[in-house]
Amino acid sequence: MKKKKASEPVDYRFDNIVAPATAVGAGAIGIIRLSGTDVITIADEIFYPATTARRKASNLKSTESYKVVFGRISEEGRLIDECLAAVFRAPGSYTGENCVEFYTHASSWIMEKVQRMLLGSAARLLKEGRISAPLRMAAAGEFTQRAFLNGKMDLAQAEAVADLIASETEASHDLAVSQMRGGFSGELRSLRQTLLQLCSLMELELDFSEEDVEFADRHKLSNLLAATYVKIKDLADSFALGNVIKNGIPVAIVGAVNTGKSTLLNLILKEERSIVSPIRGTTRDTIEDNVNIGGSLFRFIDTAGIRHTTQTIEMMGIERTWKKLKESSVIILMLDATREDAISPSLSSVAEKFDAKKQQLIVIANKTDRISLSQAEAVENLVREACKKLKLKPQGLISTSLKKEPESSRKQIETILTNIGNGFYADIQGKTYVTNLRHYQALKDAQSSLERVFAGIDSNLPTDLLAQDLREATDSLGSIIGEISSQDVLSNIFSHFCIGK
Amino acid sequence: MKKKKASEPVDYRFDNIVAPATAVGAGAIGIIRLSGTDVITIADEIFYPATTARRKASNLKSTESYKVVFGRISEEGRLIDECLAAVFRAPGSYTGENCVEFYTHASSWIMEKVQRMLLGSAARLLKEGRISAPLRMAAAGEFTQRAFLNGKMDLAQAEAVADLIASETEASHDLAVSQMRGGFSGELRSLRQTLLQLCSLMELELDFSEEDVEFADRHKLSNLLAATYVKIKDLADSFALGNVIKNGIPVAIVGAVNTGKSTLLNLILKEERSIVSPIRGTTRDTIEDNVNIGGSLFRFIDTAGIRHTTQTIEMMGIERTWKKLKESSVIILMLDATREDAISPSLSSVAEKFDAKKQQLIVIANKTDRISLSQAEAVENLVREACKKLKLKPQGLISTSLKKEPESSRKQIETILTNIGNGFYADIQGKTYVTNLRHYQALKDAQSSLERVFAGIDSNLPTDLLAQDLREATDSLGSIIGEISSQDVLSNIFSHFCIGK
Repeated sequence: MKKKKASEPVDYRFDNIVAPATAVGAGAIGIIRLSGTDVITIADEIFYPATTARRKASNLKSTESYKVVFGRISEEGRLIDECLAAVFRAPGSYTGENCVEFYTHASSWIMEKVQRMLLGSAARLLKEGRISAPLRMAAAGEFTQRAFLNGKMDLAQAEAVADLIASETEASHDLAVSQMRGGFSGELRSLRQTLLQLCSLMELELDFSEEDVEFADRHKLSNLLAATYVKIKDLADSFALGNVIKNGIPVAIVGAVNTGKSTLLNLILKEERSIVSPIRGTTRDTIEDNVNIGGSLFRFIDTAGIRHTTQTIEMMGIERTWKKLKESSVIILMLDATREDAISPSLSSVAEKFDAKKQQLIVIANKTDRISLSQAEAVENLVREACKKLKLKPQGLISTSLKKEPESSRKQIETILTNIGNGFYADIQGKTYVTNLRHYQALKDAQSSLERVFAGIDSNLPTDLLAQDLREATDSLGSIIGEISSQDVLSNIFSHFCIGK
Repeated sequence: MKKKKASEPVDYRFDNIVAPATAVGAGAIGIIRLSGTDVITIADEIFYPATTARRKASNLKSTESYKVVFGRISEEGRLIDECLAAVFRAPGSYTGENCVEFYTHASSWIMEKVQRMLLGSAARLLKEGRISAPLRMAAAGEFTQRAFLNGKMDLAQAEAVADLIASETEASHDLAVSQMRGGFSGELRSLRQTLLQLCSLMELELDFSEEDVEFADRHKLSNLLAATYVKIKDLADSFALGNVIKNGIPVAIVGAVNTGKSTLLNLILKEERSIVSPIRGTTRDTIEDNVNIGGSLFRFIDTAGIRHTTQTIEMMGIERTWKKLKESSVIILMLDATREDAISPSLSSVAEKFDAKKQQLIVIANKTDRISLSQAEAVENLVREACKKLKLKPQGLISTSLKKEPESSRKQIETILTNIGNGFYADIQGKTYVTNLRHYQALKDAQSSLERVFAGIDSNLPTDLLAQDLREATDSLGSIIGEISSQDVLSNIFSHFCIGK
């Protein structure tokens, strides 16, 4: 082992690590993973492969890589579990280090016991000088962090692993897979390469500046930069949709009090999330949940604020309420069909703030069970006319009774939302979308740096200042794929992973 | 395929089955398991092993058993996941059939998608006549049921697998392991063997009964039967402790209203399970929970009934309240140290029903913060004297303030409970305990049958009637290990397993 100076901080990257890789709960099998130089030696202290006529290996050390072996985990002759184990030797493993995986029965007691036994054995082996680094519990994401540090994947790919595990819909899955496979990283690398070349040119000019040579044609430079800038801006702009795909299409349910907003939310969430009562302003808790409708993820944003700060729809103009509405891509306006007088004002107040380019509207006229069929038709016409006058084009108009016809109401609404979802996701295949806030911010930083370069060129700024901004832009791009990264950034990224990955 | 008559029911045992084998939730890896004749063919439709210089196998069919291979799951060229897969060929697998396991990223979407793809591929293959049985989702416990049906384990061992997975403490784990390894089954087999031999003797006598031969010496028969009966009774009686080990030592917290019972329960459960307020009779919901204290599982049985049906400790005699108390192995009596007058009556009413042979008592004098040190000593003496008079020997007497000294109170109580737990579990190593209600009932049935045989011998019943009862006893024992079993019994047993095992 390399000797360390007393002041030098310990490098935990050389520890052996262990963690469960499966969720805790009712399952049949639990996986315990180990990674690090000494993990095969450590695992051999507790695991005894079953020897059969066909199989003679007496320990994991003499077991070939990638081979699943059946055996016993025991402690001083006492059987803890009969289970499978597999050895993955460096560099042919997920982390690029030696790895061992145990596939035990998923008892919480067994899984804890096995980890305690491994930690105990490792401590003893370390004391006896038979291994060179300790074994400890892995931090969140540490297996993937090691894969990154050992060059098995770049940082954007590593982050995509976490997204992949968390993916709940086809669209978010596809984005994560595309990022994991390196499509996004490839685009970034090529953009960064272009900027680096421009940098080099500028710095070359700088070296010869005494001789008044201008290598970089500032006009050509501008054009090349502009093309790169557009690509970076496109990527940054894709975050708006990328984020929606990853976190769900934001939907706000709005309307005057007691029009049935909570009833609708419960219907969609298919469970009693908020207490519904006929008393006005019953909804007090914040309600926010993701629902998968027709393969698209919808995120119902907290509209409780809207509900209980407003007594009438006219009061919806309150700033913080509208901020919520502006965040949403879909607005569902609830109307009380028994209150014809409120219909036009309600639609007007929505139209006032509605952004037809970015938002979609669904109008529901509720409580039709309390009026006649002809009255219901009159309400529908009223809504249509008001929409026409206000230039609103609702994606759907439903007149129904949520209370009397819950199932058919839900189906109608889900059909409309499914269409909206399909529209959102229609053309994501094959394109690159930024889904990660960190990436978005880095792209925005690169954009700003390039904007400073443009301004510098316009105002004839000295080349060394231009080169510095350009360098910053390349660093921002490099930080996404991890070519430029600090331990702080890494810790922050991987701490959002689950344990055992 | 064997042709079936139209009236013959389909035998679902020949279906190929698939299920996730890991718990749903935050984990890194998810396992999807397949079992059945055609599963390798089916899995090959969706999985493409990565070919490397070292590895040429292009599908799972040409992959050796027990070898983990890295590859891609894809659908019409679209990547679903990069993951590991392993093939286990019959009979060298858990179920004894061909098995395939996928180790995918633990995304709920991926895991569902992979299962849907497998089901879709299998349906197509079946239609094309390339496989002989359909693929369907496995029922709970179906993998283990197949292991049983294919002779990989007996029924008691199969049931132990479910217990092993559910085990939360060392003791319950050890019992499950011992049963899984077949210790219990071995004992049952030998008892059954003895009974079967006696049966044969009797039936032989029956065959020659015309000739008035008596092969079985009725006296010797009686002795042999008695010895077997004792062993069966011992096993049945071990259920009392076995059940406690598996489900937790039942503890009841009793005492007059407002003595701090809920406070104590919250302290022990370390969370706000019941709402505590100084208002009398606040506890209304039923509270029952398992806690692992010092390696032993304790089950706090629902004492809400005791609390709110009694206004004073004297009223504790109500039948349904005492029924609860009788079920408990440990009784914690809460006393209010500020109410000296209630101490002796409270202890008396406990002593009246207390079973010193089966139960342990802990007395807690609470609220000592409201009295002086000397007063607290007086209360302690009062409790000691009352216990002496009533011949109660509490396992522990604690005078404390749960409110002011929660941590030290909890530690004292946990120390006493740990001792009690250790006492319970002291001598379970190496012995056989029945932990399963079905086994207990079968043993009880065998006991009754044998009792009828004894009675029959005494009253000189004809041999054929004796033989019939004896046969019933052997069948009861056989039903435990599954040598005698009906599909109904099997379905019932395995339906309590988790999916994927």
